[in-house]
Amino acid sequence: MTQENRQILLRSRPQGRPSLENFERVQRLVPEPAEGQVLLRNRYLSLDPYMRGRMSDAKSYAKPAELGQPMVGGTISEVVASRNPKFAVGDIVVAHGGWQDYALSDGTGLRKIDPKLAPISTGIGVLGMPGMTAYVGLLEIGQPKPGETVVVAAASGAVGSVVGQIAKIKGARAVGVAGGADKCRFVVEELGFDACIDHRAPDLAAQLASACPQGVDVYFENVGGAVQQAVWPLLNNFARVPVCGVIAQYSATTPTPGPDIGTILRKRLLVRGFIVWDFAAKEGDFLRDVSAWIREGKLKYREDIVEGLDKAPEAFLGLLEGKNFGKLVVKVAQGGSAA
Amino acid sequence: MTQENRQILLRSRPQGRPSLENFERVQRLVPEPAEGQVLLRNRYLSLDPYMRGRMSDAKSYAKPAELGQPMVGGTISEVVASRNPKFAVGDIVVAHGGWQDYALSDGTGLRKIDPKLAPISTGIGVLGMPGMTAYVGLLEIGQPKPGETVVVAAASGAVGSVVGQIAKIKGARAVGVAGGADKCRFVVEELGFDACIDHRAPDLAAQLASACPQGVDVYFENVGGAVQQAVWPLLNNFARVPVCGVIAQYSATTPTPGPDIGTILRKRLLVRGFIVWDFAAKEGDFLRDVSAWIREGKLKYREDIVEGLDKAPEAFLGLLEGKNFGKLVVKVAQGGSAA
Repeated sequence: MTQENRQILLRSRPQGRPSLENFERVQRLVPEPAEGQVLLRNRYLSLDPYMRGRMSDAKSYAKPAELGQPMVGGTISEVVASRNPKFAVGDIVVAHGGWQDYALSDGTGLRKIDPKLAPISTGIGVLGMPGMTAYVGLLEIGQPKPGETVVVAAASGAVGSVVGQIAKIKGARAVGVAGGADKCRFVVEELGFDACIDHRAPDLAAQLASACPQGVDVYFENVGGAVQQAVWPLLNNFARVPVCGVIAQYSATTPTPGPDIGTILRKRLLVRGFIVWDFAAKEGDFLRDVSAWIREGKLKYREDIVEGLDKAPEAFLGLLEGKNFGKLVVKVAQGGSAA
Repeated sequence: MTQENRQILLRSRPQGRPSLENFERVQRLVPEPAEGQVLLRNRYLSLDPYMRGRMSDAKSYAKPAELGQPMVGGTISEVVASRNPKFAVGDIVVAHGGWQDYALSDGTGLRKIDPKLAPISTGIGVLGMPGMTAYVGLLEIGQPKPGETVVVAAASGAVGSVVGQIAKIKGARAVGVAGGADKCRFVVEELGFDACIDHRAPDLAAQLASACPQGVDVYFENVGGAVQQAVWPLLNNFARVPVCGVIAQYSATTPTPGPDIGTILRKRLLVRGFIVWDFAAKEGDFLRDVSAWIREGKLKYREDIVEGLDKAPEAFLGLLEGKNFGKLVVKVAQGGSAA
């Protein structure tokens, strides 16, 4: 066991687009667990668009990450020392371990996962926060009915891929938007969406309109920007718009005007922002349904695994530009060798 | 009985702000009811902001009014001849009689009202479409909880006055916005709102903030524009925004940018457009509850009655500028003298 704990700190808050300068890599000693604590070795670190928000100190639903502290992030971690009777060495848990090798926890918020059921990395992906964001946003707010049309951007990503596949499972038509021909092909051929439009196409709006001949009943909003502008005129009366992210606007330095509220009135739209933990009570349903759909082959997932914690800042910056292909995960440590 | 039927026709569609030029007064013969029809004499004509939308041919939830035809509008009407067994001469009905003295109907959509229960004009006001708009928008979408703060503009008007009073009945704090000191005094002293801000005040936003020290949980959106901009930063997490109108924007010739969708996300807002008939199933509940509240003195209403159909165009233009004080109604004919 190495005695060092690599950490990636938040060094400064970005103005506009973040850069590598906002991060700093340091070496610390591995901490010792106190009574009641466990020492976690992070195996996988999840990289997610919401982290852009945590880098800022603008008022939001969660506290900003602190300057000089390890960046916050969900992890799949292994218990390597335990002074907490609820956890044993070797347990694999979903944790908020942050951008580092090791973390202490008093057990709050840890969820054990069974490594026999699925690759453990799925606990921060399709069977974790991103998958559950798709599940609750689509089913609790979007409520697609058979035959309706659901549009989602970042369709090959951690959330969008699950949104479209659940839409199909529920009998709706799924239309994705993704960056580039490879991703679009994957979304249609592997994930089974009915269509996928390249958001780089100059005629995005026209292509989207022809892929949605019956209009759009659910727009799962996770990007904002040009896709939002292309979808908005296609919304049908009584369409639902769950808003889980606006990645295209995260680094904007001035507020981006939203859609005309007169349209919300005339079409009687429902537009609702949410974060996954607003629906924490649905976690059991989510794990049951999505696990079953994966087993039955109805729901597929793709991970984009980056090797090594040192790569996290660069991979995160790429995520904000759509460079990942599938759920972006950093492999921090091999299993088995720990402690 | 006069043999003439005055009609106010829609002569042209306004570009931007409507004017008297858009209307035309004509005299026609009183029509004869065919088998199955009734002849209605309009007693009261309701003037409402939604009519601005009907003057345009932009796509909306309802068909535009037709050029060369009487302007559409809700009426309280008396059956003065009947060839329909469901209606007798002398029946008072809520109808879509339009801007004219007489109208034919096959009975579809007519609702009889009992003149003994309340002044019949309330059937197009507090006990009609505007009252029900307030009732369903606030209770079905806004869902105020005791202790929460509800903000509504046009607070002395047909919808806003009912929104604030129902908010109070439900234990919430009601803050109104209205045009001028007289209306604000009425809203607080007569209707019992906790506060009312004059929207003409140069420091509208600051006054509103100090009237809402706990933030805003429900913003009943019926005006848009400057009030919307002042309220938006005050919205609490999980605030609800029923959108029933944007009168300040009806005559805009370009789309008005809406609130930043990032705020909808961060505060997990629910923004939902509706029209009253989306909740038609609630009409029985509405009539039962609001009638009871009026009888118990918990809910008051004020009508602004304009004498004579000829005055309708001018009164309607004044409504769009907030010149009315209470529910705007045109008295078209005296009762008793009809037929």
